[in-house]
Amino acid sequence: MYKKIDSADIAYLKSFIPEGRIFVHDEISDDYGHDELGGIEVKPDVLINVLSTEEVSKIMKYAHDNEIPVVARGSGTDLVGAAVALEGGIMICTQQMNHILELDENNLTITVEPGVLLMELQAYVEERDFFYPPDPGEKSATIGGNISTNAGGMRAVKYGVTRDFVRGLTVVMPNGDIEHFGGKVVKNSSGYDLKDLIIGSEGTLCIITEAILKLLPKPSESVSMLLPFKTLDKAIEVVPEIIKSKASLTAIEFMSLSTIKYAEDFLGKKFPDTNYEAYILLTFDGNSANEIEAEYNKVADMCIELGAIDGYFVDTDERKKSVWNTRGALLEAIKASTDLMDECDVVVPKDKVAKFIKYTNEVSKEVGLRIPSFGHAGDGNLHLYLCRDGLPQEEFEKRLNKGFDLLYAKAIEYHGMVSGEHGIGYAKKDYLKNQLGNHQIELMRGIKKVFDPKNILNPGKVI
Amino acid sequence: MYKKIDSADIAYLKSFIPEGRIFVHDEISDDYGHDELGGIEVKPDVLINVLSTEEVSKIMKYAHDNEIPVVARGSGTDLVGAAVALEGGIMICTQQMNHILELDENNLTITVEPGVLLMELQAYVEERDFFYPPDPGEKSATIGGNISTNAGGMRAVKYGVTRDFVRGLTVVMPNGDIEHFGGKVVKNSSGYDLKDLIIGSEGTLCIITEAILKLLPKPSESVSMLLPFKTLDKAIEVVPEIIKSKASLTAIEFMSLSTIKYAEDFLGKKFPDTNYEAYILLTFDGNSANEIEAEYNKVADMCIELGAIDGYFVDTDERKKSVWNTRGALLEAIKASTDLMDECDVVVPKDKVAKFIKYTNEVSKEVGLRIPSFGHAGDGNLHLYLCRDGLPQEEFEKRLNKGFDLLYAKAIEYHGMVSGEHGIGYAKKDYLKNQLGNHQIELMRGIKKVFDPKNILNPGKVI
Repeated sequence: MYKKIDSADIAYLKSFIPEGRIFVHDEISDDYGHDELGGIEVKPDVLINVLSTEEVSKIMKYAHDNEIPVVARGSGTDLVGAAVALEGGIMICTQQMNHILELDENNLTITVEPGVLLMELQAYVEERDFFYPPDPGEKSATIGGNISTNAGGMRAVKYGVTRDFVRGLTVVMPNGDIEHFGGKVVKNSSGYDLKDLIIGSEGTLCIITEAILKLLPKPSESVSMLLPFKTLDKAIEVVPEIIKSKASLTAIEFMSLSTIKYAEDFLGKKFPDTNYEAYILLTFDGNSANEIEAEYNKVADMCIELGAIDGYFVDTDERKKSVWNTRGALLEAIKASTDLMDECDVVVPKDKVAKFIKYTNEVSKEVGLRIPSFGHAGDGNLHLYLCRDGLPQEEFEKRLNKGFDLLYAKAIEYHGMVSGEHGIGYAKKDYLKNQLGNHQIELMRGIKKVFDPKNILNPGKVI
Repeated sequence: MYKKIDSADIAYLKSFIPEGRIFVHDEISDDYGHDELGGIEVKPDVLINVLSTEEVSKIMKYAHDNEIPVVARGSGTDLVGAAVALEGGIMICTQQMNHILELDENNLTITVEPGVLLMELQAYVEERDFFYPPDPGEKSATIGGNISTNAGGMRAVKYGVTRDFVRGLTVVMPNGDIEHFGGKVVKNSSGYDLKDLIIGSEGTLCIITEAILKLLPKPSESVSMLLPFKTLDKAIEVVPEIIKSKASLTAIEFMSLSTIKYAEDFLGKKFPDTNYEAYILLTFDGNSANEIEAEYNKVADMCIELGAIDGYFVDTDERKKSVWNTRGALLEAIKASTDLMDECDVVVPKDKVAKFIKYTNEVSKEVGLRIPSFGHAGDGNLHLYLCRDGLPQEEFEKRLNKGFDLLYAKAIEYHGMVSGEHGIGYAKKDYLKNQLGNHQIELMRGIKKVFDPKNILNPGKVI
């Protein structure tokens, strides 16, 4: 078993981490005992706000020699318990490693520390006419966290996910060694792809302390359109037609009126239109107004033919703010609409989205739970929230488990995956195992053992 | 050690592989004893042209139970000995698994067997108005081979490499089990990324028997321009300026006059212009002529200001054929210009290309070997050929090793990598180890052991 942290351990850690950056037992805020969803609560014994790769290395070496579990954490915005210190031990918080180290205009890369927030990165590069396309809903997540879950976001339709924009990583291994994977190079065929193995591994293989990210030139034009539909079914059914038309879209999001209403209540602000049951939000970007116009006219005409009531441009500052604030607040708003919820982050092939949403409504009725949803219709990634709404906990858990069983079974039937971008963490391990089968889980466990033979890094997660 | 194939093994294999698809010892053509570069020659004991995943599974299960080494091979166009059966045993040739299984217009994917040739795939999708962007020079390579080396090609500047277009893989594991990694989904955060681990692993972890590839809509417009320069230095030096200008380019290739002359001799055809020392070939694509025109005008003006003598459009069918046939024949032409050569496939950050090419000229003088080169100036991937030119073999090897040592050391100094797209195979193992260090090689060896504990799959390669 793991060593329980004692006063000698704390004394050693305090010998090189100054006061104000190290907290022990009761000094640690409860916030560090859970993540954004809050399903599980365990506080670490020691919390350290690290400042450098070398500090992380020194802590890891000590933890390795003494078999103390270590969990790395950024903003703690995850939803599957990945950043919770299930076994206590040391929590390494990277929030203060939040510096942008280099913008390399010759190679179109930016090098950052892991604690830089997504919104800080986006603002920094866009001010300088560059573009970091991955755009997960939670802008206050850290880049280290985004990499650790391979976060996707809204613009995956056109640009891909976080993985596609990570060129190089500096990491600290479980034994304290510092390693560099990848670099600024565009192509690489030099041995096994350890960099991509680390992306999405939820802090179980090593701790990311620096990342080289690929940038693009910022598209000069970006236009969004909001299309209302009479029913959610009608709205979702146009999506495969849009994709089949080969139009070039940046994002295709869907929102139901009920979900929008939660956001209106939560924000205390009105959405531009609430006369219809469902809305599709389309984004187009490019380098010429003409080019984009041709695309959105084609798509809007097609959508109206297929049942859209209208197509509004999200063009004035007021309307942009209203629409994007609503879209950004959906998770928080659903959370505020109930006393407890759990989430399902399935991803299915794009042409199965409409069927899956319909199935969700059936599951909602069958298990007797409200299941509001929103998500990335254009890339098949859905966010479903199963809400307790005052049920006794035992009854909720019964219904929740039944609901999850049905939803994940359907995802597998459609050749989808358990998680599109939120990861597995602690909460979805059983479902991952169900889907992949023993052989693949054993491969993953074998890899974990190669990286972390003492199993001290984020134990109890993923596999 | 491995079991030596005997008559009982052959009888078993012939019990389910019919005559005409299985060859033993002397029946095997010498072609299967070497790859395109031909540095090493070892024939397998048995060659089997497989037709299905199930056949591969049955062969692997037998090989696993009997500890017989197995090497998978596509067209054998590689340049580092990756597809050579160093330990003899069974060679599984996938060339007859060459069917396109499904074009899924709803999900923009195509599912193929591994023996489909790159040129067949490109033609198939382009006829149907889709686009598979990876474009390695060797069009007769198989897709299975492209995936196994993470081949890059000319359009990596804009679109990325093979890895970026592989959504799912069906593979046969060393013990004969059939596994599926990834799928048609766009996002995936469900456990460790085994799919990307397999891409670029050169057939050492499992055998790819089916691949789901991502397609794009075919850009309606594509324009190439040829820009002559007085010197190679002048030509290469404009590349970082083009990249810094944030222009949207699909490809930036460079060719020196001497290399073009080899291709003219080899093809017996004239290149459109041979008055200058060096040429840059630019490609632009997009969905509107206006949009592309704005880009190429901007870039051409900039290049002329920076030293380009002119800018010719590669627009007539004749000129297209002449330029692209020349570009496609460069490797073969250099090969025909000497009696023996070895290659260096380094990749460096884009802004180091000019410096690296200059350094190559110094190395050529220092070690006394001709080193013609060409490559992907826009993504930092260079192909350098160290030519024997009649030297005694011992002397050539001495100079070659010194040349490689210098070139790879410089690549590491520039934070480049040993291989951009050709892989490590047998020939570049020492250089990979030099670059990555023992710890990373041990991680890779550990992963190899997790997948293939008996080390029967393509032994002696990569690590």
